[in-house]
Amino acid sequence: MKRFAAVVSYDGTDFFGFQNQPEMRTVQGTFEDALERIHKYRIVTQGAGRTDTGVHGYGQVIAFDSNLDHLSAKIMCDALNANLPADIYVRRVHEVESNFSPRFAAKKRIYHYYILNSNDPDIFRRRYVWWFPYRLDIEAMRKAADQLTGEHDFSAFKTGRDDRNPIRTISSIRIIRYPSHLILIRVEGVSFLKRMVRNIVGTLVKVGTGAIQEDKVREFLLSQDRSNLPSSAPPQGLVFYKVIFDEFET
Amino acid sequence: MKRFAAVVSYDGTDFFGFQNQPEMRTVQGTFEDALERIHKYRIVTQGAGRTDTGVHGYGQVIAFDSNLDHLSAKIMCDALNANLPADIYVRRVHEVESNFSPRFAAKKRIYHYYILNSNDPDIFRRRYVWWFPYRLDIEAMRKAADQLTGEHDFSAFKTGRDDRNPIRTISSIRIIRYPSHLILIRVEGVSFLKRMVRNIVGTLVKVGTGAIQEDKVREFLLSQDRSNLPSSAPPQGLVFYKVIFDEFET
Repeated sequence: MKRFAAVVSYDGTDFFGFQNQPEMRTVQGTFEDALERIHKYRIVTQGAGRTDTGVHGYGQVIAFDSNLDHLSAKIMCDALNANLPADIYVRRVHEVESNFSPRFAAKKRIYHYYILNSNDPDIFRRRYVWWFPYRLDIEAMRKAADQLTGEHDFSAFKTGRDDRNPIRTISSIRIIRYPSHLILIRVEGVSFLKRMVRNIVGTLVKVGTGAIQEDKVREFLLSQDRSNLPSSAPPQGLVFYKVIFDEFET
Repeated sequence: MKRFAAVVSYDGTDFFGFQNQPEMRTVQGTFEDALERIHKYRIVTQGAGRTDTGVHGYGQVIAFDSNLDHLSAKIMCDALNANLPADIYVRRVHEVESNFSPRFAAKKRIYHYYILNSNDPDIFRRRYVWWFPYRLDIEAMRKAADQLTGEHDFSAFKTGRDDRNPIRTISSIRIIRYPSHLILIRVEGVSFLKRMVRNIVGTLVKVGTGAIQEDKVREFLLSQDRSNLPSSAPPQGLVFYKVIFDEFET
Protein backbone atom coordinates (compact mmCIF):
# COMPACT_ATOMS: atom_id res chain seq x y z
CA MET A 1 0.00 0.00 0.00
CA LYS A 2 1.23 3.47 -0.93
CA ARG A 3 -0.07 6.85 0.24
CA PHE A 4 -0.12 9.75 -2.18
CA ALA A 5 -0.78 13.47 -1.82
CA ALA A 6 -2.06 15.14 -5.00
CA VAL A 7 -1.66 18.90 -5.54
CA VAL A 8 -4.93 19.82 -7.17
CA SER A 9 -6.23 22.93 -8.94
CA TYR A 10 -9.87 23.40 -9.82
CA ASP A 11 -12.29 25.94 -11.16
CA GLY A 12 -14.90 25.98 -8.40
CA THR A 13 -17.64 27.60 -10.49
CA ASP A 14 -19.45 24.42 -11.41
CA PHE A 15 -18.84 22.48 -8.20
CA PHE A 16 -21.02 22.40 -5.13
CA GLY A 17 -17.94 23.03 -2.99
CA PHE A 18 -15.04 20.76 -2.15
CA GLN A 19 -16.50 18.32 0.34
CA ASN A 20 -18.42 15.15 -0.53
CA GLN A 21 -22.19 15.56 -0.55
CA PRO A 22 -24.67 12.98 -1.79
CA GLU A 23 -26.14 13.73 -5.25
CA MET A 24 -24.02 16.86 -5.66
CA ARG A 25 -21.10 17.50 -8.00
CA THR A 26 -18.27 18.22 -5.57
CA VAL A 27 -14.50 18.38 -6.09
CA GLN A 28 -13.83 15.56 -3.64
CA GLY A 29 -16.55 13.35 -5.10
CA THR A 30 -15.33 13.94 -8.65
CA PHE A 31 -11.76 13.17 -7.57
CA GLU A 32 -12.91 9.96 -5.86
CA ASP A 33 -14.77 8.98 -9.04
CA ALA A 34 -11.49 9.28 -10.97
CA LEU A 35 -9.67 7.22 -8.32
CA GLU A 36 -12.38 4.58 -8.55
CA ARG A 37 -11.95 4.29 -12.31
CA ILE A 38 -8.22 3.73 -11.79
CA HIS A 39 -8.46 1.34 -8.81
CA LYS A 40 -11.84 -0.34 -9.47
CA TYR A 41 -12.88 0.28 -5.84
CA ARG A 42 -13.93 3.32 -3.84
CA ILE A 43 -11.22 5.18 -1.92
CA VAL A 44 -11.85 7.68 0.86
CA THR A 45 -9.77 10.83 0.45
CA GLN A 46 -8.78 13.68 2.74
CA GLY A 47 -8.32 17.30 1.67
CA ALA A 48 -6.19 20.04 3.21
CA GLY A 49 -9.16 22.39 3.43
CA ARG A 50 -12.80 22.73 2.50
CA THR A 51 -13.79 25.29 -0.07
CA ASP A 52 -17.34 26.57 -0.58
CA THR A 53 -19.38 26.54 -3.78
CA GLY A 54 -17.73 28.79 -6.37
CA VAL A 55 -14.40 29.01 -4.54
CA HIS A 56 -11.38 27.83 -6.53
CA GLY A 57 -8.36 25.70 -5.74
CA TYR A 58 -4.82 26.15 -6.97
CA GLY A 59 -2.76 24.36 -4.33
CA GLN A 60 -5.38 22.15 -2.66
CA VAL A 61 -4.00 18.82 -1.42
CA ILE A 62 -5.90 15.54 -1.55
CA ALA A 63 -4.35 12.49 0.15
CA PHE A 64 -5.34 8.87 -0.44
CA ASP A 65 -4.10 5.28 -0.10
CA SER A 66 -3.57 3.15 -3.17
CA ASN A 67 -2.97 -0.57 -3.53
CA LEU A 68 -1.36 0.01 -6.94
CA ASP A 69 2.16 -0.26 -5.55
CA HIS A 70 3.73 -0.47 -8.98
CA LEU A 71 2.54 3.05 -9.93
CA SER A 72 4.97 5.92 -9.42
CA ALA A 73 3.72 9.31 -8.28
CA LYS A 74 4.20 10.62 -11.84
CA ILE A 75 2.15 7.83 -13.40
CA MET A 76 -0.58 8.29 -10.77
CA CYS A 77 -0.67 12.01 -11.67
CA ASP A 78 -1.11 11.23 -15.38
CA ALA A 79 -3.73 8.56 -14.65
CA LEU A 80 -5.75 11.00 -12.54
CA ASN A 81 -5.63 13.73 -15.19
CA ALA A 82 -6.74 11.23 -17.82
CA ASN A 83 -9.81 10.49 -15.69
CA LEU A 84 -10.73 13.98 -14.46
CA PRO A 85 -12.99 16.54 -16.17
CA ALA A 86 -11.63 19.79 -17.64
CA ASP A 87 -12.25 21.82 -14.48
CA ILE A 88 -9.95 19.78 -12.21
CA TYR A 89 -6.24 19.36 -12.86
CA VAL A 90 -3.67 17.52 -10.76
CA ARG A 91 -0.49 19.63 -10.86
CA ARG A 92 1.67 16.89 -9.29
CA VAL A 93 1.56 13.92 -6.93
CA HIS A 94 3.90 13.22 -4.00
CA GLU A 95 4.38 9.87 -2.30
CA VAL A 96 4.00 10.48 1.45
CA GLU A 97 4.22 8.58 4.76
CA SER A 98 1.36 6.21 5.54
CA ASN A 99 0.11 8.47 8.35
CA PHE A 100 0.27 11.76 6.37
CA SER A 101 -2.80 13.93 6.95
CA PRO A 102 -3.07 17.07 4.79
CA ARG A 103 -5.55 18.49 7.24
CA PHE A 104 -3.44 18.12 10.38
CA ALA A 105 0.05 18.33 8.88
CA ALA A 106 -0.52 21.72 7.21
CA LYS A 107 1.86 24.29 8.72
CA LYS A 108 0.39 27.16 6.74
CA ARG A 109 -2.52 27.82 4.39
CA ILE A 110 -2.52 30.71 1.92
CA TYR A 111 -5.63 32.14 0.28
CA HIS A 112 -5.74 34.64 -2.57
CA TYR A 113 -8.69 36.91 -3.13
CA TYR A 114 -8.93 38.83 -6.43
CA ILE A 115 -10.90 42.04 -6.85
CA LEU A 116 -11.30 43.61 -10.30
CA ASN A 117 -11.41 47.31 -9.43
CA SER A 118 -12.34 48.80 -12.81
CA ASN A 119 -15.23 50.78 -14.22
CA ASP A 120 -16.17 47.98 -16.58
CA PRO A 121 -16.55 44.30 -15.78
CA ASP A 122 -14.40 41.80 -17.65
CA ILE A 123 -16.52 39.06 -19.22
CA PHE A 124 -13.50 36.78 -19.41
CA ARG A 125 -12.56 37.06 -15.75
CA ARG A 126 -16.03 37.16 -14.24
CA ARG A 127 -15.77 33.60 -12.85
CA TYR A 128 -12.48 34.41 -11.06
CA VAL A 129 -12.77 37.92 -9.64
CA TRP A 130 -15.10 40.09 -7.63
CA TRP A 131 -15.88 43.04 -9.88
CA PHE A 132 -16.02 46.07 -7.64
CA PRO A 133 -16.25 49.34 -9.62
CA TYR A 134 -15.93 51.86 -6.78
CA ARG A 135 -12.79 53.57 -5.55
CA LEU A 136 -10.89 51.68 -2.84
CA ASP A 137 -8.45 53.29 -0.42
CA ILE A 138 -5.76 50.61 -0.27
CA GLU A 139 -3.87 52.32 2.57
CA ALA A 140 -6.95 52.30 4.80
CA MET A 141 -7.52 48.62 3.93
CA ARG A 142 -3.93 47.81 4.90
CA LYS A 143 -4.31 49.54 8.26
CA ALA A 144 -7.53 47.61 8.91
CA ALA A 145 -5.83 44.37 7.90
CA ASP A 146 -3.06 45.03 10.41
CA GLN A 147 -5.65 44.91 13.18
CA LEU A 148 -6.63 41.40 12.11
CA THR A 149 -3.18 39.86 11.96
CA GLY A 150 -1.95 37.93 14.97
CA GLU A 151 -3.90 35.68 17.35
CA HIS A 152 -7.53 36.65 17.96
CA ASP A 153 -10.95 35.21 18.69
CA PHE A 154 -12.44 35.32 15.17
CA SER A 155 -16.02 34.42 16.18
CA ALA A 156 -17.27 37.61 14.51
CA PHE A 157 -15.62 36.54 11.22
CA LYS A 158 -17.19 33.12 10.78
CA THR A 159 -20.47 32.28 9.08
CA GLY A 160 -22.71 29.36 9.89
CA ARG A 161 -22.00 26.50 12.23
CA ASP A 162 -18.34 25.94 13.10
CA ASP A 163 -17.79 24.58 16.61
CA ARG A 164 -14.01 24.63 16.47
CA ASN A 165 -11.95 26.84 18.73
CA PRO A 166 -12.56 30.36 17.38
CA ILE A 167 -9.06 31.49 18.31
CA ARG A 168 -6.96 31.56 15.15
CA THR A 169 -3.70 33.14 14.08
CA ILE A 170 -3.34 35.14 10.89
CA SER A 171 0.34 35.48 10.12
CA SER A 172 -0.07 38.06 7.38
CA ILE A 173 -2.49 39.92 5.13
CA ARG A 174 -0.92 41.58 2.08
CA ILE A 175 -2.85 43.83 -0.29
CA ILE A 176 -1.33 44.43 -3.70
CA ARG A 177 -2.71 46.62 -6.47
CA TYR A 178 -1.68 45.58 -10.00
CA PRO A 179 -1.69 47.88 -13.05
CA SER A 180 -4.30 45.59 -14.68
CA HIS A 181 -6.95 46.88 -12.20
CA LEU A 182 -6.61 43.71 -10.15
CA ILE A 183 -6.26 43.91 -6.40
CA LEU A 184 -4.90 40.82 -4.65
CA ILE A 185 -5.59 40.23 -0.97
CA ARG A 186 -3.28 37.44 0.22
CA VAL A 187 -4.13 35.94 3.61
CA GLU A 188 -1.80 33.54 5.39
CA GLY A 189 -2.51 31.51 8.51
CA VAL A 190 -2.44 27.99 9.89
CA SER A 191 -6.16 27.38 9.60
CA PHE A 192 -9.35 29.36 9.19
CA LEU A 193 -12.95 29.25 10.37
CA LYS A 194 -15.88 28.80 8.04
CA ARG A 195 -16.02 31.61 5.46
CA MET A 196 -13.47 33.56 7.50
CA VAL A 197 -11.40 34.80 4.54
CA ARG A 198 -14.45 36.04 2.64
CA ASN A 199 -15.73 37.79 5.76
CA ILE A 200 -12.35 39.46 6.21
CA VAL A 201 -12.32 40.59 2.56
CA GLY A 202 -15.91 41.88 2.76
CA THR A 203 -14.95 43.97 5.78
CA LEU A 204 -11.71 45.28 4.26
CA VAL A 205 -13.58 46.39 1.14
CA LYS A 206 -16.09 48.31 3.26
CA VAL A 207 -13.15 50.04 4.91
CA GLY A 208 -11.73 50.74 1.44
CA THR A 209 -14.90 52.55 0.38
CA GLY A 210 -14.88 54.64 3.57
CA ALA A 211 -18.20 53.20 4.77
CA ILE A 212 -16.43 51.79 7.83
CA GLN A 213 -13.55 53.44 9.66
CA GLU A 214 -10.38 51.39 9.77
CA ASP A 215 -10.23 51.33 13.59
CA LYS A 216 -13.74 49.84 13.70
CA VAL A 217 -12.27 46.47 12.78
CA ARG A 218 -10.84 45.91 16.24
CA GLU A 219 -14.32 46.55 17.69
CA PHE A 220 -15.77 43.88 15.40
CA LEU A 221 -13.19 41.39 16.62
CA LEU A 222 -13.86 42.18 20.28
CA SER A 223 -17.64 41.99 19.82
CA GLN A 224 -17.32 38.33 18.72
CA ASP A 225 -20.64 38.90 16.98
CA ARG A 226 -21.08 38.13 13.29
CA SER A 227 -24.22 40.27 13.02
CA ASN A 228 -22.12 43.44 13.27
CA LEU A 229 -20.12 42.60 10.17
CA PRO A 230 -20.55 43.65 6.53
CA SER A 231 -21.55 40.83 4.21
CA SER A 232 -19.08 38.25 2.91
CA ALA A 233 -17.17 38.87 -0.27
CA PRO A 234 -18.59 36.67 -3.07
CA PRO A 235 -17.01 33.24 -3.60
CA GLN A 236 -15.66 33.59 -7.13
CA GLY A 237 -12.76 35.88 -6.13
CA LEU A 238 -11.31 33.35 -3.69
CA VAL A 239 -8.61 30.77 -4.43
CA PHE A 240 -7.19 28.25 -1.97
CA TYR A 241 -3.72 29.05 -3.21
CA LYS A 242 -1.09 27.14 -1.29
CA VAL A 243 -0.47 24.76 1.60
CA ILE A 244 2.91 24.41 3.32
CA PHE A 245 3.91 21.13 4.99
CA ASP A 246 7.23 20.04 6.44
CA GLU A 247 7.53 17.56 3.60
CA PHE A 248 6.64 19.81 0.63
CA GLU A 249 4.66 22.86 -0.35
CA THR A 250 2.07 23.28 -3.07
CA MET B 1 -36.80 56.35 -34.71
CA LYS B 2 -33.12 56.09 -33.75
CA ARG B 3 -30.53 53.60 -34.91
CA PHE B 4 -27.92 52.37 -32.45
CA ALA B 5 -24.74 50.31 -32.78
CA ALA B 6 -23.77 48.44 -29.62
CA VAL B 7 -20.16 47.32 -29.03
CA VAL B 8 -20.62 43.93 -27.43
CA SER B 9 -18.29 41.50 -25.66
CA TYR B 10 -19.30 37.95 -24.84
CA ASP B 11 -17.94 34.71 -23.51
CA GLY B 12 -18.89 32.33 -26.31
CA THR B 13 -18.51 29.16 -24.24
CA ASP B 14 -22.16 28.73 -23.38
CA PHE B 15 -23.66 30.07 -26.61
CA PHE B 16 -24.54 28.16 -29.71
CA GLY B 17 -22.71 30.76 -31.79
CA PHE B 18 -23.65 34.34 -32.61
CA GLN B 19 -26.42 33.97 -35.14
CA ASN B 20 -30.11 33.45 -34.33
CA GLN B 21 -31.22 29.83 -34.38
CA PRO B 22 -34.58 28.55 -33.20
CA GLU B 23 -34.53 26.87 -29.77
CA MET B 24 -30.81 27.58 -29.29
CA ARG B 25 -29.12 29.98 -26.89
CA THR B 26 -27.31 32.33 -29.27
CA VAL B 27 -25.68 35.72 -28.69
CA GLN B 28 -27.98 37.47 -31.15
CA GLY B 29 -31.11 35.82 -29.77
CA THR B 30 -30.13 36.67 -26.18
CA PHE B 31 -29.41 40.26 -27.20
CA GLU B 32 -32.80 40.49 -28.97
CA ASP B 33 -34.48 39.13 -25.82
CA ALA B 34 -32.94 42.00 -23.84
CA LEU B 35 -34.08 44.52 -26.48
CA GLU B 36 -37.58 43.06 -26.32
CA ARG B 37 -37.72 43.52 -22.54
CA ILE B 38 -36.77 47.17 -23.01
CA HIS B 39 -39.02 47.92 -26.03
CA LYS B 40 -41.91 45.49 -25.45
CA TYR B 41 -41.69 44.33 -29.08
CA ARG B 42 -39.28 42.19 -31.07
CA ILE B 43 -36.47 43.97 -32.92
CA VAL B 44 -34.39 42.44 -35.70
CA THR B 45 -30.68 43.12 -35.22
CA GLN B 46 -27.63 42.92 -37.47
CA GLY B 47 -24.13 41.89 -36.36
CA ALA B 48 -20.75 42.79 -37.84
CA GLY B 49 -19.76 39.14 -38.10
CA ARG B 50 -20.90 35.66 -37.22
CA THR B 51 -18.97 33.71 -34.63
CA ASP B 52 -19.19 29.95 -34.16
CA THR B 53 -20.07 28.06 -31.00
CA GLY B 54 -17.39 28.64 -28.37
CA VAL B 55 -15.85 31.65 -30.14
CA HIS B 56 -15.78 34.87 -28.11
CA GLY B 57 -16.53 38.48 -28.87
CA TYR B 58 -14.76 41.55 -27.58
CA GLY B 59 -15.54 44.17 -30.21
CA GLN B 60 -18.58 42.66 -31.94
CA VAL B 61 -21.07 45.24 -33.17
CA ILE B 62 -24.85 44.79 -33.11
CA ALA B 63 -27.01 47.43 -34.80
CA PHE B 64 -30.75 47.94 -34.29
CA ASP B 65 -33.55 50.48 -34.63
CA SER B 66 -35.37 51.79 -31.59
CA ASN B 67 -38.56 53.79 -31.23
CA LEU B 68 -37.44 55.02 -27.81
CA ASP B 69 -36.27 58.36 -29.14
CA HIS B 70 -35.91 59.85 -25.68
CA LEU B 71 -33.17 57.37 -24.73
CA SER B 72 -29.55 58.48 -25.17
CA ALA B 73 -26.90 56.00 -26.29
CA LYS B 74 -25.57 55.90 -22.70
CA ILE B 75 -28.95 55.07 -21.21
CA MET B 76 -29.56 52.43 -23.88
CA CYS B 77 -26.21 50.88 -22.94
CA ASP B 78 -27.15 50.72 -19.25
CA ALA B 79 -30.62 49.37 -20.04
CA LEU B 80 -29.14 46.58 -22.16
CA ASN B 81 -26.63 45.59 -19.49
CA ALA B 82 -29.39 45.52 -16.89
CA ASN B 83 -31.26 43.01 -19.08
CA LEU B 84 -28.38 40.82 -20.30
CA PRO B 85 -26.95 37.71 -18.59
CA ALA B 86 -23.44 37.68 -17.07
CA ASP B 87 -21.77 36.35 -20.22
CA ILE B 88 -22.70 39.29 -22.49
CA TYR B 89 -21.64 42.85 -21.78
CA VAL B 90 -22.30 45.96 -23.85
CA ARG B 91 -19.12 48.06 -23.69
CA ARG B 92 -20.76 51.12 -25.24
CA VAL B 93 -23.50 52.22 -27.63
CA HIS B 94 -23.17 54.67 -30.55
CA GLU B 95 -26.04 56.44 -32.25
CA VAL B 96 -25.58 55.90 -36.01
CA GLU B 97 -27.18 56.89 -39.33
CA SER B 98 -30.46 55.20 -40.17
CA ASN B 99 -28.84 53.19 -42.97
CA PHE B 100 -25.79 52.04 -40.99
CA SER B 101 -24.99 48.35 -41.58
CA PRO B 102 -22.24 46.85 -39.39
CA ARG B 103 -21.88 44.04 -41.88
CA PHE B 104 -21.35 46.16 -44.98
CA ALA B 105 -19.80 49.28 -43.43
CA ALA B 106 -16.94 47.41 -41.74
CA LYS B 107 -13.61 48.59 -43.18
CA LYS B 108 -11.57 46.09 -41.19
CA ARG B 109 -12.14 43.13 -38.89
CA ILE B 110 -9.51 41.97 -36.41
CA TYR B 111 -9.46 38.54 -34.79
CA HIS B 112 -7.23 37.43 -31.92
CA TYR B 113 -6.32 33.80 -31.38
CA TYR B 114 -4.71 32.80 -28.06
CA ILE B 115 -2.53 29.72 -27.63
CA LEU B 116 -1.29 28.69 -24.18
CA ASN B 117 2.07 27.15 -25.01
CA SER B 118 3.04 25.68 -21.65
CA ASN B 119 3.69 22.22 -20.23
CA ASP B 120 0.71 22.43 -17.92
CA PRO B 121 -2.80 23.54 -18.77
CA ASP B 122 -4.30 26.48 -16.89
CA ILE B 123 -7.65 25.59 -15.38
CA PHE B 124 -8.58 29.27 -15.16
CA ARG B 125 -7.89 30.05 -18.81
CA ARG B 126 -9.15 26.83 -20.38
CA ARG B 127 -12.27 28.51 -21.80
CA TYR B 128 -10.23 31.21 -23.53
CA VAL B 129 -7.10 29.59 -24.92
CA TRP B 130 -5.99 26.62 -26.95
CA TRP B 131 -3.62 24.72 -24.68
CA PHE B 132 -0.84 23.41 -26.89
CA PRO B 133 2.04 21.90 -24.88
CA TYR B 134 4.53 21.24 -27.70
CA ARG B 135 7.37 23.46 -28.86
CA LEU B 136 6.41 25.98 -31.56
CA ASP B 137 8.88 27.63 -33.92
CA ILE B 138 7.47 31.14 -34.06
CA GLU B 139 9.83 32.24 -36.85
CA ALA B 140 8.64 29.46 -39.13
CA MET B 141 5.02 30.36 -38.30
CA ARG B 142 5.70 33.99 -39.22
CA LYS B 143 7.17 32.99 -42.57
CA ALA B 144 4.17 30.79 -43.29
CA ALA B 145 1.83 33.64 -42.28
CA ASP B 146 3.56 35.95 -44.75
CA GLN B 147 2.46 33.63 -47.56
CA LEU B 148 -1.17 34.10 -46.54
CA THR B 149 -1.22 37.89 -46.35
CA GLY B 150 -2.47 39.81 -49.36
CA GLU B 151 -5.26 38.93 -51.77
CA HIS B 152 -5.79 35.22 -52.44
CA ASP B 153 -8.45 32.64 -53.23
CA PHE B 154 -8.98 31.18 -49.74
CA SER B 155 -11.20 28.27 -50.82
CA ALA B 156 -8.79 25.85 -49.14
CA PHE B 157 -9.17 27.73 -45.85
CA LYS B 158 -12.94 27.62 -45.46
CA THR B 159 -15.02 24.92 -43.82
CA GLY B 160 -18.59 24.01 -44.70
CA ARG B 161 -20.88 25.84 -47.03
CA ASP B 162 -19.96 29.41 -47.88
CA ASP B 163 -20.94 30.50 -51.37
CA ARG B 164 -19.41 33.95 -51.17
CA ASN B 165 -16.53 35.01 -53.37
CA PRO B 166 -13.54 33.04 -52.00
CA ILE B 167 -11.13 35.84 -52.87
CA ARG B 168 -10.28 37.70 -49.67
CA THR B 169 -7.57 40.07 -48.54
CA ILE B 170 -5.65 39.59 -45.32
CA SER B 171 -3.90 42.83 -44.49
CA SER B 172 -1.71 41.41 -41.74
CA ILE B 173 -0.99 38.42 -39.51
CA ARG B 174 1.10 39.16 -36.43
CA ILE B 175 2.38 36.49 -34.07
CA ILE B 176 3.49 37.62 -30.61
CA ARG B 177 4.92 35.45 -27.84
CA TYR B 178 4.29 36.77 -24.31
CA PRO B 179 6.37 35.83 -21.22
CA SER B 180 3.21 34.31 -19.68
CA HIS B 181 3.40 31.40 -22.18
CA LEU B 182 0.65 32.98 -24.26
CA ILE B 183 1.02 33.26 -28.00
CA LEU B 184 -1.26 35.73 -29.75
CA ILE B 185 -2.02 35.38 -33.45
CA ARG B 186 -3.64 38.60 -34.63
CA VAL B 187 -5.31 38.45 -38.05
CA GLU B 188 -6.59 41.56 -39.82
CA GLY B 189 -8.68 41.74 -42.97
CA VAL B 190 -11.86 43.20 -44.38
CA SER B 191 -13.90 40.00 -44.16
CA PHE B 192 -13.35 36.30 -43.76
CA LEU B 193 -14.83 33.04 -45.01
CA LYS B 194 -16.42 30.50 -42.73
CA ARG B 195 -13.95 29.25 -40.14
CA MET B 196 -11.11 30.86 -42.11
CA VAL B 197 -9.21 32.24 -39.11
CA ARG B 198 -9.29 28.92 -37.24
CA ASN B 199 -8.13 27.09 -40.37
CA ILE B 200 -5.26 29.54 -40.74
CA VAL B 201 -4.26 29.08 -37.08
CA GLY B 202 -4.50 25.29 -37.33
CA THR B 203 -2.16 25.37 -40.32
CA LEU B 204 0.30 27.82 -38.73
CA VAL B 205 0.54 25.63 -35.61
CA LYS B 206 1.36 22.59 -37.76
CA VAL B 207 4.12 24.64 -39.35
CA GLY B 208 5.27 25.63 -35.86
CA THR B 209 5.67 21.99 -34.83
CA GLY B 210 7.64 21.22 -37.99
CA ALA B 211 5.02 18.75 -39.25
CA ILE B 212 4.48 20.96 -42.31
CA GLN B 213 7.15 22.98 -44.08
CA GLU B 214 6.50 26.70 -44.16
CA ASP B 215 6.56 26.91 -47.98
CA LYS B 216 3.84 24.26 -48.16
CA VAL B 217 1.29 26.93 -47.24
CA ARG B 218 1.40 28.51 -50.69
CA GLU B 219 0.64 25.08 -52.20
CA PHE B 220 -2.42 24.75 -49.93
CA LEU B 221 -3.67 28.14 -51.15
CA LEU B 222 -3.15 27.26 -54.81
CA SER B 223 -4.81 23.84 -54.42
CA GLN B 224 -8.08 25.56 -53.36
CA ASP B 225 -8.87 22.26 -51.66
CA ARG B 226 -9.81 22.13 -47.99
CA SER B 227 -9.09 18.41 -47.75
CA ASN B 228 -5.34 19.06 -47.92
CA LEU B 229 -5.37 21.21 -44.81
CA PRO B 230 -4.62 20.35 -41.17
CA SER B 231 -7.64 20.51 -38.88
CA SER B 232 -9.06 23.79 -37.56
CA ALA B 233 -7.79 25.27 -34.34
CA PRO B 234 -10.42 24.80 -31.59
CA PRO B 235 -12.96 27.60 -31.07
CA GLN B 236 -12.17 28.66 -27.51
CA GLY B 237 -8.92 30.44 -28.45
CA LEU B 238 -10.63 32.80 -30.90
CA VAL B 239 -11.95 36.29 -30.14
CA PHE B 240 -13.67 38.61 -32.60
CA TYR B 241 -11.59 41.47 -31.31
CA LYS B 242 -12.29 44.67 -33.19
CA VAL B 243 -14.18 46.20 -36.10
CA ILE B 244 -13.17 49.44 -37.77
CA PHE B 245 -15.77 51.69 -39.45
CA ASP B 246 -15.45 55.16 -40.88
CA GLU B 247 -17.67 56.39 -38.04
CA PHE B 248 -15.96 54.65 -35.05
CA GLU B 249 -13.95 51.63 -34.08
CA THR B 250 -14.63 49.07 -31.39
